Amino acid sequence: MLAKSIFLAAALLAPVLTGAAEKPSSKLVYSDQELYRLGRPRVFQGPTLREVAFPLGGIGTGTVSLGGRGNLRDWEVFNRPGKGVNLPFTFFALYFEQGKEKAVRVLEGPISPPYTGQDGIRRTEVPGLPRFERARFHGEYPLAWVELEDRKLPLQVTFEAFNPCIPLDPESSAIPAVVFRFRIRNLSGEPAKVTVAGSLLNPIGFDGEGTVDGIGSSKFGQNLNEIRKGAALSGLFLSSRKVKPDAPAYGTMALATPWKSLTYLSHWVRGQWWDDLQIFWDDFADDGRLQDLDEASPSAEGRTDIGTLGLMAEVAPFGEVALPFILAWNFPNFLDYFDIVRDQRGQKFRNHYAEHYPDAWAAAEHLHKNLPELERGTRRFHSLFFNSTLPPYVLDAVSSQASIARTMTCFWLEGGQFFAFEGCNDKTGCCPLNCAHVWNYEQSLAFLFPSLERSMRETDFLVNTKDNGEMVFRTSLPLGEKLWNFRPAADGSLGRVINLYRDWRLSGDLAFLKKLWPKAKAVLEYTWTAWDADKDGLIEGEQHNTYDIEFYGPNSMIGTFYLGALLAGSRMAEAAGDPASAKTYGEMFDKGRAAFDRLLWNGEYYVQKYDQVMEKKYQYGDGCLSDQMLGQWLAMVAGLGRFLPEDRLKTTLKSIFNYNFMTDFRGYSNAQRTYALNDERGLLLCTWPKGGRPPLPFVYSDEVWTGIEYHVASHLMYEGMVDEGLTVAKAVRDRYDGLRRNPWDEVECGHHYARAMSSWGLLLALSGYSYSGPEAKLGFAPKLYPENFRTFWTTGSAWGEFRQRGAAVKGFSAELTVAGGEQRLSELSVELPPSVRGKKVVAAAAALAGKPVKVAFRQDGHGVMVFWAPAAAVKAGETLAVELKF
Amino acid sequence: MLAKSIFLAAALLAPVLTGAAEKPSSKLVYSDQELYRLGRPRVFQGPTLREVAFPLGGIGTGTVSLGGRGNLRDWEVFNRPGKGVNLPFTFFALYFEQGKEKAVRVLEGPISPPYTGQDGIRRTEVPGLPRFERARFHGEYPLAWVELEDRKLPLQVTFEAFNPCIPLDPESSAIPAVVFRFRIRNLSGEPAKVTVAGSLLNPIGFDGEGTVDGIGSSKFGQNLNEIRKGAALSGLFLSSRKVKPDAPAYGTMALATPWKSLTYLSHWVRGQWWDDLQIFWDDFADDGRLQDLDEASPSAEGRTDIGTLGLMAEVAPFGEVALPFILAWNFPNFLDYFDIVRDQRGQKFRNHYAEHYPDAWAAAEHLHKNLPELERGTRRFHSLFFNSTLPPYVLDAVSSQASIARTMTCFWLEGGQFFAFEGCNDKTGCCPLNCAHVWNYEQSLAFLFPSLERSMRETDFLVNTKDNGEMVFRTSLPLGEKLWNFRPAADGSLGRVINLYRDWRLSGDLAFLKKLWPKAKAVLEYTWTAWDADKDGLIEGEQHNTYDIEFYGPNSMIGTFYLGALLAGSRMAEAAGDPASAKTYGEMFDKGRAAFDRLLWNGEYYVQKYDQVMEKKYQYGDGCLSDQMLGQWLAMVAGLGRFLPEDRLKTTLKSIFNYNFMTDFRGYSNAQRTYALNDERGLLLCTWPKGGRPPLPFVYSDEVWTGIEYHVASHLMYEGMVDEGLTVAKAVRDRYDGLRRNPWDEVECGHHYARAMSSWGLLLALSGYSYSGPEAKLGFAPKLYPENFRTFWTTGSAWGEFRQRGAAVKGFSAELTVAGGEQRLSELSVELPPSVRGKKVVAAAAALAGKPVKVAFRQDGHGVMVFWAPAAAVKAGETLAVELKF
Repeated sequence: MLAKSIFLAAALLAPVLTGAAEKPSSKLVYSDQELYRLGRPRVFQGPTLREVAFPLGGIGTGTVSLGGRGNLRDWEVFNRPGKGVNLPFTFFALYFEQGKEKAVRVLEGPISPPYTGQDGIRRTEVPGLPRFERARFHGEYPLAWVELEDRKLPLQVTFEAFNPCIPLDPESSAIPAVVFRFRIRNLSGEPAKVTVAGSLLNPIGFDGEGTVDGIGSSKFGQNLNEIRKGAALSGLFLSSRKVKPDAPAYGTMALATPWKSLTYLSHWVRGQWWDDLQIFWDDFADDGRLQDLDEASPSAEGRTDIGTLGLMAEVAPFGEVALPFILAWNFPNFLDYFDIVRDQRGQKFRNHYAEHYPDAWAAAEHLHKNLPELERGTRRFHSLFFNSTLPPYVLDAVSSQASIARTMTCFWLEGGQFFAFEGCNDKTGCCPLNCAHVWNYEQSLAFLFPSLERSMRETDFLVNTKDNGEMVFRTSLPLGEKLWNFRPAADGSLGRVINLYRDWRLSGDLAFLKKLWPKAKAVLEYTWTAWDADKDGLIEGEQHNTYDIEFYGPNSMIGTFYLGALLAGSRMAEAAGDPASAKTYGEMFDKGRAAFDRLLWNGEYYVQKYDQVMEKKYQYGDGCLSDQMLGQWLAMVAGLGRFLPEDRLKTTLKSIFNYNFMTDFRGYSNAQRTYALNDERGLLLCTWPKGGRPPLPFVYSDEVWTGIEYHVASHLMYEGMVDEGLTVAKAVRDRYDGLRRNPWDEVECGHHYARAMSSWGLLLALSGYSYSGPEAKLGFAPKLYPENFRTFWTTGSAWGEFRQRGAAVKGFSAELTVAGGEQRLSELSVELPPSVRGKKVVAAAAALAGKPVKVAFRQDGHGVMVFWAPAAAVKAGETLAVELKF
Repeated sequence: MLAKSIFLAAALLAPVLTGAAEKPSSKLVYSDQELYRLGRPRVFQGPTLREVAFPLGGIGTGTVSLGGRGNLRDWEVFNRPGKGVNLPFTFFALYFEQGKEKAVRVLEGPISPPYTGQDGIRRTEVPGLPRFERARFHGEYPLAWVELEDRKLPLQVTFEAFNPCIPLDPESSAIPAVVFRFRIRNLSGEPAKVTVAGSLLNPIGFDGEGTVDGIGSSKFGQNLNEIRKGAALSGLFLSSRKVKPDAPAYGTMALATPWKSLTYLSHWVRGQWWDDLQIFWDDFADDGRLQDLDEASPSAEGRTDIGTLGLMAEVAPFGEVALPFILAWNFPNFLDYFDIVRDQRGQKFRNHYAEHYPDAWAAAEHLHKNLPELERGTRRFHSLFFNSTLPPYVLDAVSSQASIARTMTCFWLEGGQFFAFEGCNDKTGCCPLNCAHVWNYEQSLAFLFPSLERSMRETDFLVNTKDNGEMVFRTSLPLGEKLWNFRPAADGSLGRVINLYRDWRLSGDLAFLKKLWPKAKAVLEYTWTAWDADKDGLIEGEQHNTYDIEFYGPNSMIGTFYLGALLAGSRMAEAAGDPASAKTYGEMFDKGRAAFDRLLWNGEYYVQKYDQVMEKKYQYGDGCLSDQMLGQWLAMVAGLGRFLPEDRLKTTLKSIFNYNFMTDFRGYSNAQRTYALNDERGLLLCTWPKGGRPPLPFVYSDEVWTGIEYHVASHLMYEGMVDEGLTVAKAVRDRYDGLRRNPWDEVECGHHYARAMSSWGLLLALSGYSYSGPEAKLGFAPKLYPENFRTFWTTGSAWGEFRQRGAAVKGFSAELTVAGGEQRLSELSVELPPSVRGKKVVAAAAALAGKPVKVAFRQDGHGVMVFWAPAAAVKAGETLAVELKF
């Protein structure tokens, strides 16, 4: 066991809490090693490969996933979720020749059991072809790679895959194309010949409904595979003459490469039975060369074709080649099959990406042409992020769930508005759209692609908010045409006000705030009609909320939302030039906070006060609700700070952990939905430690939602309970271990559920991140490894790395590096690590890009603010270095 | 390593074979221990529980399966296969109370990963309710039981399940009802109260198409759950007022018990959200008593109900109770959705069982009333079978695949005709019906329920055979109305002639033979039109066959069918009083056999001679075909004996093993369907050890079919290569291990594929079984453990056990016990075990039911025939004992 002080800063700050908090809770089930060890995220192999599906799409492009074995699975490029949609006969294969030896392998690890199916394993996945003996999957979003091994081949093969993903740069992160690269290292002293052949079924005509079970379907016919040979790229271009340009299924695909030594088949033999695969494989296995068939002939009605593109190379003794492919797609027509306003369904829109790329080939060419820059940005993001001194499962939780913005949960239409479901059913988005109370929790989009987040705020306030301040919490397409006829959600409306404050602070864009403010004000004041008619600062009335039911009476959950919204409203009113409102909200906040604290505190946490709690269905009463401090947490993230009494807040969070975190589910009875079971660990939505459980409490009370687990974990960290927060976060990721569930698909009411993007809060809390765009102030106060800390960060205008060192340099130094964008900055605040605590800072020095900057400083306890004027602009590639003298 | 002579008799008999056979083949991958160890079949636990689904149906009743964890799965009672059809909220649960302690558990083991699903694990399977910590599944068809353990409960719980299954008694084996019995043993010194509650969704209205995903469906409405209280049985009776009696979905179900101390709910609370399960569970968990709601009110339109029947008991300290349930169903209307003659589809028939049981309650009452006798017969079958001194995986292979006759692969219609698909797709039978070339291989039905097998022979010859001898190899309903318009299958037609010989010999029923003979003769002679126009005894021409393609030219596969059919035809003609035909067939057989041997032998095995084998698709040419001796094997099973030269036959079988048995699939390329892969072992359909593989050989050549593996294994055993035969059989069952595949569902073109019923041949070959009904002769020549051997046997009129002892009694004694039916017998032949070989028998004594029988004997090498006149009738319960003196 390592000394905890090595890891922790916050622990030294944490005050003694009430009750059980003085001794370590029995619910701290992990060792310090398990919680604090640094390193790369876990690697998947053997049985844990089976559920792995790593999404490779861009923003609003749809996606295909890389399976744990190196297989492509869940094709969701057809403007619909597509869990279980695998393209038949679509795989990469290796030919190897050395002297008289030759071998072929599908570039995948072995198929995992069970091997069931009414005709054996699905033949379309070519299960009978030989594969590598072992696969190891590494997923560090947005990069993934699979190491393939086979004792019989003197090769080290790595299959790399990524889609460009650059913080704050949505356009560069929205390319409907994936880079695949096969690195083949020759481990022997003899030269080897290799071919890597990618086979791809032409799926044009498939509209995402159902599955593609073979080459035959009434959706297929006149599918055309062309061989294109260009100066930059060559390869397969797939289209259909049958599908008209305005049809939802219309589109093109491409499998292209800049490699010059090629072999190919525009289409496999059109035979009977399984002649096609047999002839392809025998030909390939013979010498690694195909027939080089370049025949652009459309397929017969009801059939489609498979084409193959092979890259040939010699690998020198002990040498390496990297064989590159670009897989691109373009399905421009986005069908609204789901609209919340039923009679709006059936309309078609165009994907934003189609405004840039007329077809898949154009997307491939764009990606190829800009690859050096796109890859540099992507790799920089990856390396800064994964070099953070945060535990690997935290990095994994934050990065993996940031992928949700690049799955079919989200889409991006022509004109630039960004939309999202809550999550995805297997084959349909669910539920539509921009659901305010679910999207409240998410932070990843706001911090990675803030312009898209702001587009959602515009929709919330400028489209969905009526003049009386009723915010319609689900969006109908096209924008502004029809509004859904349903009562507002109390948490949805009020949360969006807090989020607006966050987005304004991140962007520093006063014009943006001013544009939205009138509607935000209306939303906030609508509370006085709907939920706080007596304007006492306390929520009452019927409160529809994210549990899909109504709460009644004052309660912790909606109460903290209201307080947070009042505080945010007050600040925004001030900024927007409305001091009267600012004062009103401020006074109401003070009043409400006092009433909240007085009325709802039960000594350990806050509750719901409602006299019919045992009679009226779906309330929580005296329950300890995991979401009770959600409004407070949103306020923390937004930069509004702690507004409840510190001791009670800490006690509340500790109570949530102590009561609601389950270390085992084996004896537990849950009649609701099941997201954790057996030997797993997880945080319940609610418990009744003091009795008083209503006969029928709210309908999700016994469930476990990762989106809530993450915000509670983050909040525990903010308040110094780092062990507890890490324990909750690790429990989530242990459930998503590749054997039980897909680590890149946290599920609630659907796959890739948006609420899970609250995981970004772990990064914010552990790094003690604070930012004010309007004031050009940035700060960090690491919650662990403060003596030698590194973290990735973003603001509304830049992203990069922050490093601080204490004991390691026998003093204190900090460096802020901008990797992308430009950061206007007039203050950097830091928190002194234990090694220099209690010492008085006597001088501060700073340099920007090596040039000294004249700075002042102020010390306040452990905090030190270093500031200067005028604000400096730290450009991409530049570092601002600060040193403190004691 | 044990001395092999302990196990083997046959090995001592085996002549020295050519080539590699002299030393053990490297393909003998199992140790002697692994091959020869006796004991109970394997037990499933942990990960191997996941795919287990043990069918609990009767003949022609449809089935539901018992999952490895104790869950009910794959409801196939709706006259359709239903893989994946689980009834929502249908489960058994335990309430336990002892002093102040109480606990509840679903009577299942833990749910296995993965835990995926768009909303978490399917809520309809109540995954959130607590289960037992561990389950162990024992399946010894027709009995299954699950042991459930939980450290927190001082109980030993065993969940037993069976459907009566008595050899030769199809009516007793065709009851649409299952017995469930929960044995609960109190392991503590304090008394305990328990309730076992069975909850069952009323599915009436569901027609087997799609799945049942919850209580809501347009198929539901006016579902009626009634509580019935009778002198013998009480329980739940489920019906629907909406579904009309002539609708395919019409039916009833019952969950009944003779137990007297009951608690129940005719239907769960009809609430919102998940009120129903919550209220049921909380009520149950409170005191193990339900509301005893007896309200017969139909469900609302679009909804159905769940009812619960609870059995309450006190369990004395260290005592045990057995709480019995009968689950019964009755869906009388069988829809022909599949007819091979398309315009016949849509007609409805009645299930045979509906002729006996007007509804599910009647079936339950019948089962209950006759349970002592039905259970005695079933358990006698089980115990005699599993007490056989055959390796457990052999018993498992034989018994598990005999279940196919009691799955949705088969059905039994009013009027008594028995029908069968080849197997089952997930939701449809496939392919229709009585496919001659597939059903050729199966022996289980012929030996367990010979009257049903004879009904198939009647359909083959009296319905499907045209006057010119063309046998239509798929059956259309109703019988005799329309015939499918497709050419005959050469193997189908000729195999059915051999099978007719088998069925006549088993039954001893000359009238049956005479009734079918004219058409059988026509079928045999149709060969001279279609495939042996020059009547040289050698097959030529275009031969459609079980590989769904045509072979051309003389070949080993169809050749042995022809020889077997000629030999069978000659014998049957003789018996039917047609000596001229007998002579003709006999002469042609002799001529054909010589030509076959001369033309097709390549020194190691027999081949196909066809000059266009490399040009014409789908041939095998010089390939070593696993089915090449199939006609010979059918002849062995039928009692026609070995007709090819012994040395060549043995060499051929050894070649098949050596060349076609794969000990690993990792380097193997197969473009066809995949039934074996990775580290598995299995027998390929064909290999080309001497080259000459056509570019496109027949379309299944690289596949692995268990039905072929079993007949080859059986044939190897018949010919003394017991190690090899056991190796092949064990390889199959190792693939079906519960983790990879369901042990009770061997798959080919569909689940429960009929060909796998060739596994009965393992029992026949290992016991050296021979029988002639007409001559009243029965014989055994054990291939292993001959010094102390026990085996189960059946004939057309009786079933029972045969035991022989040699070394153990310092001499030789044999006992034949009839457990069911009556066996007319005038001769019992045995084979002397090694301990008395070479000794001369000087006297034979016999006794029937303890009374001496005067016998004579004849010794012929190792064989001794003991005979007497007139034939004796050995009745059920009687034993015929024979002792030899040396």
